[in-house]
Amino acid sequence: MAEPALDGLIEALRRLPGVGVKSAQRLAFHLLQHDRDGAKRLARALDDAVAKTRHCARCHTFTEGEVCATCLDPRRDARLLCVVESPADQAALERSGSYAGLYFVLMGRLSPLDGVGAQDIGAAELLERASDGVVQEVILATSFTAEGEVTAHALAQALRARGLKVTRLARGVPAGSELEYVDLGTIAHALVDRR
Amino acid sequence: MAEPALDGLIEALRRLPGVGVKSAQRLAFHLLQHDRDGAKRLARALDDAVAKTRHCARCHTFTEGEVCATCLDPRRDARLLCVVESPADQAALERSGSYAGLYFVLMGRLSPLDGVGAQDIGAAELLERASDGVVQEVILATSFTAEGEVTAHALAQALRARGLKVTRLARGVPAGSELEYVDLGTIAHALVDRR
Repeated sequence: MAEPALDGLIEALRRLPGVGVKSAQRLAFHLLQHDRDGAKRLARALDDAVAKTRHCARCHTFTEGEVCATCLDPRRDARLLCVVESPADQAALERSGSYAGLYFVLMGRLSPLDGVGAQDIGAAELLERASDGVVQEVILATSFTAEGEVTAHALAQALRARGLKVTRLARGVPAGSELEYVDLGTIAHALVDRR
Repeated sequence: MAEPALDGLIEALRRLPGVGVKSAQRLAFHLLQHDRDGAKRLARALDDAVAKTRHCARCHTFTEGEVCATCLDPRRDARLLCVVESPADQAALERSGSYAGLYFVLMGRLSPLDGVGAQDIGAAELLERASDGVVQEVILATSFTAEGEVTAHALAQALRARGLKVTRLARGVPAGSELEYVDLGTIAHALVDRR
């Protein structure tokens, strides 16, 4: 069509993860046809987030201050440090209402095939953070996927080498599930970790 | 997390069609963690497209000028007017290399349940455009879905009432397909429309 502004928008949308040419076209047409205010609002939100959001100096999550609100909260137990892959995982743990310690957010997981190494997930920052003399136990809450397990394994080794107690979230049968429908690997783990 | 800039970005991304809370979070984290340049580029592209892109005065597609390049092309046959639902459908017809007439782009299709009526798809503009005294045949190339068929039916009635010749793209067996795997409705149409 040779409309540079429209082509540029489609190209920029295509760079989003999981968005192909057709989705990018559909998004661009939708915004220009039905939601120009939304497009302008999205542009402002992007600029705003890029300008203001940085990593928390203590837990590495996204924050607008030097240190995030969770790390600054004096009611949290500073002896416990829970390691998660993303702010979304951190939010899920917070919603469970059963954790009162602090966090370290990796912003990813080890994935050698995708070129994601220890430096990309802030492993050195985690080791430094966990060695503050206050942290007594590091709870590894990375995903129970191959990459999440590899990440947990590598971090556990490095943390234990520094004399820290390292634990992992329990694997087992999800709450509310009927055993009949739970996959076999989960049942096997629940048996091994029985209490 | 109470980070207004990040929350604002997630909220703005959520408004995109087909993007839920989790996808919006994933997109926001990805942009802030891995592609801040991409985020800024997307913001510029959004502003640019909103500022520069408008509807072609003749065919209603998106363009940066008063009239789009296709409508201005003197080599195109102005006696043929092909009606499509979107610039993407127009691009598909252009890629086929088998159409040399002009277009009218509806920017949608009738969908009473979603509140999309004749005025939203520029039906009045199409009638005016098709009544320029030059157009002899209007080819309805809306989708062969329920909504596309309803749109074609309504437009055909209005156009025929103005004395215009109206045709519809042929329905039939797609090129390269084995009859065994073609759905029955398509086979039935191909039989009725046999030539």
